[in-house]
Amino acid sequence: MSASPIETDALVIGAGPVGLFQAFQLGLLEIGCHIVDALPHAGGQCVELYGDKPIYDIPGTPATTGRGLVESLLRQIAPFDVPMHLGQRVATLAREPDGRWRLATDQGTVFRARTVFIAAGVGAFVPRRLTIEGIGRFEGSRLFYHPDADTLARFTGQDVAVNGGGDDALRTALTLVAQARASGRPARVTLVHRRDGFQADAALVAEVRAAIAAGTLGFVVGQPTGLDDEQVEVTRPDDDIVAAPVAALIVCLGVSPRLGPIADWGLALERKQVPVDTARYETREPGVFAVGDINTYPGKRKLIVCGFHEATLAAWGATTIVFPDRAVPLQYTTTSTRLHELLGVAPN
Amino acid sequence: MSASPIETDALVIGAGPVGLFQAFQLGLLEIGCHIVDALPHAGGQCVELYGDKPIYDIPGTPATTGRGLVESLLRQIAPFDVPMHLGQRVATLAREPDGRWRLATDQGTVFRARTVFIAAGVGAFVPRRLTIEGIGRFEGSRLFYHPDADTLARFTGQDVAVNGGGDDALRTALTLVAQARASGRPARVTLVHRRDGFQADAALVAEVRAAIAAGTLGFVVGQPTGLDDEQVEVTRPDDDIVAAPVAALIVCLGVSPRLGPIADWGLALERKQVPVDTARYETREPGVFAVGDINTYPGKRKLIVCGFHEATLAAWGATTIVFPDRAVPLQYTTTSTRLHELLGVAPN
Repeated sequence: MSASPIETDALVIGAGPVGLFQAFQLGLLEIGCHIVDALPHAGGQCVELYGDKPIYDIPGTPATTGRGLVESLLRQIAPFDVPMHLGQRVATLAREPDGRWRLATDQGTVFRARTVFIAAGVGAFVPRRLTIEGIGRFEGSRLFYHPDADTLARFTGQDVAVNGGGDDALRTALTLVAQARASGRPARVTLVHRRDGFQADAALVAEVRAAIAAGTLGFVVGQPTGLDDEQVEVTRPDDDIVAAPVAALIVCLGVSPRLGPIADWGLALERKQVPVDTARYETREPGVFAVGDINTYPGKRKLIVCGFHEATLAAWGATTIVFPDRAVPLQYTTTSTRLHELLGVAPN
Repeated sequence: MSASPIETDALVIGAGPVGLFQAFQLGLLEIGCHIVDALPHAGGQCVELYGDKPIYDIPGTPATTGRGLVESLLRQIAPFDVPMHLGQRVATLAREPDGRWRLATDQGTVFRARTVFIAAGVGAFVPRRLTIEGIGRFEGSRLFYHPDADTLARFTGQDVAVNGGGDDALRTALTLVAQARASGRPARVTLVHRRDGFQADAALVAEVRAAIAAGTLGFVVGQPTGLDDEQVEVTRPDDDIVAAPVAALIVCLGVSPRLGPIADWGLALERKQVPVDTARYETREPGVFAVGDINTYPGKRKLIVCGFHEATLAAWGATTIVFPDRAVPLQYTTTSTRLHELLGVAPN
């Protein structure tokens, strides 16, 4: 199942604001890059946690939002056509005999990169998992975390339980109900949530309440505590256990950041942070840089504005690896014809 | 002539983009500051040299201009009502017995500051001066560099020479002609420029050419080489010397950056740059920070994005001096009620 690796000058891990600006600075220096992010969209924590919340301390931007900042950065890097590999998590990092870095994602994508930029913030945002012993063996067959529409469609007309009380859980339950009805194959869809109350969009909640009242959606207050080849077991607040036969258990408990495999890459972490120097923001592994919230050095403050600087000097650090035979001159976007060409802007 | 000094937590030298963002970061940390700049307006080099030129590498701002960036930064710091002392150049820096810094400008303004932030870029932008021996004694009486309207008005109806070929020289010459005509007091205004050609706005040049053709404005090709109590001496390209009686010689040869007195402050300059550490961007003098193009450290690149980071960590560095008795917690503009109060934004 191993495709031939993608060769690249640079691989950026993380598509948050700092990872995106990293790609911009690499682009200005004519260092090609790919970006990988665990989330299905660019923006990282900034969109996931602060999408509509205000940000006032980006220099030259008196007010924006997490989403607004990310959209601006995507416009800024657009001239470089950076390939993004979303919904994938880098699992392994290893040095090859020729000095390049080999990285593989949990989806089987493999990169061979001359330089690596870890812009992973507080870690990859991965779905919160159920902690039920032995449940892992069902993942992908009877157990799914935040599945996509294709996966949901596979269970049309089959009995399914959905666990969670947020937007995605409610939307998923309603989708399953609707696809059963549309197919004409009756199926029992049951929403399982730890309490009788939802933290979700008011319109979605109203729709779910109506479906429950109409009997098209089942609802059990409780938490899944068992899953086998036949049924899901739910423990109710009074410790009663109820069981229901299901074809699948769909879990939508949100995402949370996990440092994950980065901890195993030999980067001498200090309190889950990667130590770097401040001249190149390089880790103790030559060619592996760390920028943004994930790194640490004397004076470090976890602020986006600092990550932008770190990404800038890290890109310059990479020039000695990608262009070992020549000194790269500092050029200004205000005056450099070459930079104007790269950015696709008119010469004047 | 010494007024009582202005007491302040912080004095920022330089109102370019980095100096302005320095004031913003100080404001977020509740450190009061004043800004001094040699130019009569905020923006520094960015407005003086690149006012209408494009800038593409400010993170989150795909395209702006020097002036556009400065206007955004002025909006961003507006909530802090930072007093600006423009058209003044800091001349002296000295430590007081109580550890504060005493600074005096060339206009006689004196500050006593707990911390100092040198954000002076390539130096203070000062008018290019004539290099004629002994001419300094006339400055302010018969010799003026880029004077303001009040100064020009003092010479209504008197013979004046204007030296220069740029916008400001041409505008000044036309102003003098117009004010003579309006007053009904005939006066000879003579434009002196080293060559018969102007580097200025096309409409201004046309107006000047018309005035010369009409005889209301005199024009001599050459350079001033002498000034005494009676007359100005101009040496023409063929080395002929012509002399004309004038009440004043107005020199408008543009501005150029000069490091000036900063070189004498004991900061151990390296190639006109101030060495700093990268944890606080502090110079070897405790409490004196240097940020932006004027500083140097391993990996330094003269980019505005780097100056923004340096200003951020320098502001944090100042907290241990301004608030020696308490640790200041990191707060985010996205979530902190206190920061929202300081910024004057609605709590939600």
